[in-house]
Parts: sequence; C-alpha cells; structure tokens
Amino acid sequence: MNSNLKEIEQYLIGLQNDICDGLSSVDGKSTFKSDKWERSEGGGGDTRVIKDGAIYEKGGVNFSHVFGAIPDFINETKKSDGIFHATGVSIVIHPQNPFVPIIHMNVRYFELRDKTDNEIIDAWFGGGIDVSPAYPNESDTKFFHQFIKQACDEIDESYYPLFKKTCDEYFYIQHRKEMRGISGIFYDHLRPKSVEERNKFFHFMQKVGNSFLPIYKELSIRNKDKAYNEENKKWQFIRRGRYAEFNLVYDRGTHFGLKTNGRIESILMSLPPMAEWVYDYHPEKGTPEEKTLAYFQPKEWV
Amino acid sequence: MNSNLKEIEQYLIGLQNDICDGLSSVDGKSTFKSDKWERSEGGGGDTRVIKDGAIYEKGGVNFSHVFGAIPDFINETKKSDGIFHATGVSIVIHPQNPFVPIIHMNVRYFELRDKTDNEIIDAWFGGGIDVSPAYPNESDTKFFHQFIKQACDEIDESYYPLFKKTCDEYFYIQHRKEMRGISGIFYDHLRPKSVEERNKFFHFMQKVGNSFLPIYKELSIRNKDKAYNEENKKWQFIRRGRYAEFNLVYDRGTHFGLKTNGRIESILMSLPPMAEWVYDYHPEKGTPEEKTLAYFQPKEWV
Repeated sequence: MNSNLKEIEQYLIGLQNDICDGLSSVDGKSTFKSDKWERSEGGGGDTRVIKDGAIYEKGGVNFSHVFGAIPDFINETKKSDGIFHATGVSIVIHPQNPFVPIIHMNVRYFELRDKTDNEIIDAWFGGGIDVSPAYPNESDTKFFHQFIKQACDEIDESYYPLFKKTCDEYFYIQHRKEMRGISGIFYDHLRPKSVEERNKFFHFMQKVGNSFLPIYKELSIRNKDKAYNEENKKWQFIRRGRYAEFNLVYDRGTHFGLKTNGRIESILMSLPPMAEWVYDYHPEKGTPEEKTLAYFQPKEWV
Repeated sequence: MNSNLKEIEQYLIGLQNDICDGLSSVDGKSTFKSDKWERSEGGGGDTRVIKDGAIYEKGGVNFSHVFGAIPDFINETKKSDGIFHATGVSIVIHPQNPFVPIIHMNVRYFELRDKTDNEIIDAWFGGGIDVSPAYPNESDTKFFHQFIKQACDEIDESYYPLFKKTCDEYFYIQHRKEMRGISGIFYDHLRPKSVEERNKFFHFMQKVGNSFLPIYKELSIRNKDKAYNEENKKWQFIRRGRYAEFNLVYDRGTHFGLKTNGRIESILMSLPPMAEWVYDYHPEKGTPEEKTLAYFQPKEWV
C-alpha cells in the first residue's frame, strides 16, 4: 500500500481552517491567531489559539505533522530503526459561560515506516470527540450523542457502541471515580489491512472531523446567553480542575507530546484558563451542582 | 534490628501538632480542622486542613500510617508476599499573598516486612523540604538554604550538597525546563545498615521536621504584609499552575498515593486553590516577573 499521508494532511489542514472560521463567526468578538512551529527532530505544526472571546475564553485548534526516529517508548512493533509520522488535528475549547460545555476533539493518523522512510511497516487511525459540561443537561447530552452516533452509523453501525464504551473507559478519572464529562466516542489503532479499509477509516476520520462544527455551534448557541452567578463560576472552576487532573495524570496524547519533545504550549493549550481546587468539596444535596454528578458516570444516552 | 516504627510514629504525631499550632498562631484568623480517615486495606491518617486564613489560603498538614500487602508496582525488593508500612508527615501550604512562598515538606519512613509482619526485610527514610515563591528574592532564598544547610550539617556535612542536588533534579519540570521553585533538599532510600545508622537517619528526620516551623514562620512574617496588585495575583496563579503540573505529572508521592488507594483528598490537598493557564505566557523583559525566572534554574545559594 502506498501512503496516503499527503491526502490525509490536506484534509486536516482544510478541517482546521473550517473550524477556526466557523467558531470565530459564532463567537463574533475574538478570532484565532496562528502560531506556526517547527520540531527540531522533524516536522511541525500550526497552533491556532482563541483568547478572551465573547463565548470562548481560551481554546486551541492545532494541526501538526511530526516525524522522525521512532521514540523508545513506542515498542509495539519492536522495529526501532524506522521512521514515524504522526499527523492530526486536536481541539480543546474552554468557554466563558459555565453553561457552555468544554469540548475536545482529536483525529489523527500514525504511520511507521522503515528506515528509508518509504515502506509502511504499520499504520493506524485514532481519534474521538467528547464533551465536558460543568452543568450537563439531558437535552444537550442526547443531542450530542445522537449526532455522533449518526456520524458513526453512516460508516459502520458497530462503531458507536464500541467507541462510546472505549470513551467511557478512557475519560474516566480513576482516582475520582468519575468521568471527565459526558463521554462521546474514542477509538485508536484502527489498522487498515487493505486499501478499501483504509478508505473506510479515512472516511470515518472525516465524519468525526466534520461533525465538530455543527455539534459545537449548536451547544454554544443553546447555552451562551444563560445567566450565571458566582456559585456557577465556582463549580465551573472545580470541574476545570478535574479536567486538568485528567489531562496531566492520564491523557495519552499529552504524555505522547511531552515524551516526543512536542511543542509544550500546543500540548498544554488544553489546560483551562482558571481552575480551582477546594479541599474535600461536595455539592450539597438537591443543588444543581449535585444533580450534575449523575452525568459523570457512564450511561447509555441514545 | 527490631522495628522502631512506633517511636517514629510518636515523633511524627507530635510534629504535626506543633506545626498546626505554630501556623495557626502566626495566621491569627483561621485554624486547622482535623479529618481522620481509615484505609480499607490497612492503616489511615489524620489530615489537618487550614482554609481562608489571613495568611494561609489553603493548606494541609497530613499524618498517615498505611500498611498492607506490598503493592505490585514496588518491585525493588522482589519480595511480593510481605507487608509494607509507610508513615510520614506531608505538608503543602498555599498562601494568599503572592509574596509569601508556597512551602512543601515531607518526612517519611518505609518498612517492608515478611508476611508474618514481624521481621524487617528492608527499610528506608525519605523526605525533604522545598520552597516555591511566585516572587523569589535573594534574601529569603539565602535564609532558607542557610537554615536547612545548618540542619543537615549538624548530622552530616555531606548531606546538604548531596540532597540539594537531588532536590534540584527532582523538582525540575522537565517539559518547562524550569524548577517548581527555589529548591531545598530531597532525599530518599536512606537504608540503615545498623542501629547506629538508624538513629542517625531518624535524628536527621527530626532535624528536617523541626526546621519547618522556624523557616516558614520567618518567610511568612517577612512577606505577609507586602502590598500586591492584579498583576502579582496573575503571576501567582500562573506559578500555581506550574505547581499543579509538577504534582500531577511527576510527583512520586502523588502517584504512590493514587496507586495505593490512598485518600484522594489528602493526596490532592497539595493542589492550589486557584490556578491559571495562559497560552504561551512570557513575562516582558525587565518586569519583576521576568526577573523571577533566573531563580527557577538550579544554583548554589550558600
């Protein structure tokens, strides 16, 4: 199989542009600024960052394509004298209003080649999309899961149940016994065994990528004008603390970036603007905050 | 050698009391509240927490003694059918005023016994004390290092240079290429080979433990009334973000706690009250914030 890395890259660059344009237009106040960077060992990226928007307080839409000698800690293939290529788009958006959810999406493609950088030894697709509201509600949660299930179903009806389950497991904060948010889908190591299968997986990548904007536009517009008070901000800060805990303790993408000498500011762009840790904080029974906790346990939404 | 765990425990409980009393009296507004807890697999602790003090915004002085089957990930001794005991006092204090430093101290003793819980197979002492100011200054930095060097020298003149170096290396945030603070001392795996040596190490534990209060009283009183503005708070929040990064990504104590099913709130008590992440933030040349950066690289202070 010849590599279709170029084609994938073209799609990802287009996706980044569309998402930045789309979110800027929803926000209306702030736009994305581009930071192009190079990685000394090979490759680089374009980190687009939005700051102090009307809706979006801090967010990044990153494209990257890095390559080079296979890092020691990737020993799955035991072929350490080859070249790896990793390309993807990675997004995290932290909104101002506690009623607008944090969103995360990542679509990526990984290729291991022999040392001539020509022959493909191994290749896989990975990615996912998940939502982390401070105040989840049933209607938004169902809308999101329904939308992403539909996108999955158009490629393969086995995908949503499988990748939803993987997401429930992956975004689980073990030490808190709760999820980071209301889940979504997460998949990894989709290894194409034929050109047809590769086309299928690439098509799936596009389905996931293209679902981001309609989903987040809708969730933003539905919630951006909701009134909030100090209590709501406090809860948002605490949930952002959980988000930081997950990303720094468990997230494989974050650790991959730190270990491959990735660009720190692009990797840690996912961290929240303002977060808070309160000792042994438990929302009181019957409060809106306490009601959110049921959403942070795995559940079938559609 | 018979175990002197009981004696060590008695010292640690007294130390916790003295430190809580001492800091409460310096603070003048808030005091420590005690949360006693038990670990289902064996042992427990007493977490003392201060909140919204005049000087101390959030802090904890933890005592714990946990024991049970040796966790799988401790395979240093390859004797997995034994019983471990771990006891220690662990402190992190986050002050209100950006000019008062965060302080961390830990003194601990670890014992591995055979499965009858009687015979000692292995035992070691560990600990350290280090300071993380948002605005380090030369006079405080020298005072702190001089004080702790003196405490070390009274036991063994080789300790300070050795343990200062270990601290420089340990509290280094690899991905930021900077230290969490202005260092201090850090030591681990001091394994007594005789009763004399055990007495020496225990004596050293006491020297370190007893140095906490005079050091932090002095650093608090020197800085607590300094005027500060929004810019200073912002820098404090950013440095607290670095503190959270270190603790969640690298800290062995935190990971040990998470893996041994420790009490989460006691372990994560170290996390800051309010922290902030700003994309690609660099203080401008010549500002007080920019001047602090030189302090976050290893240096000989005394």
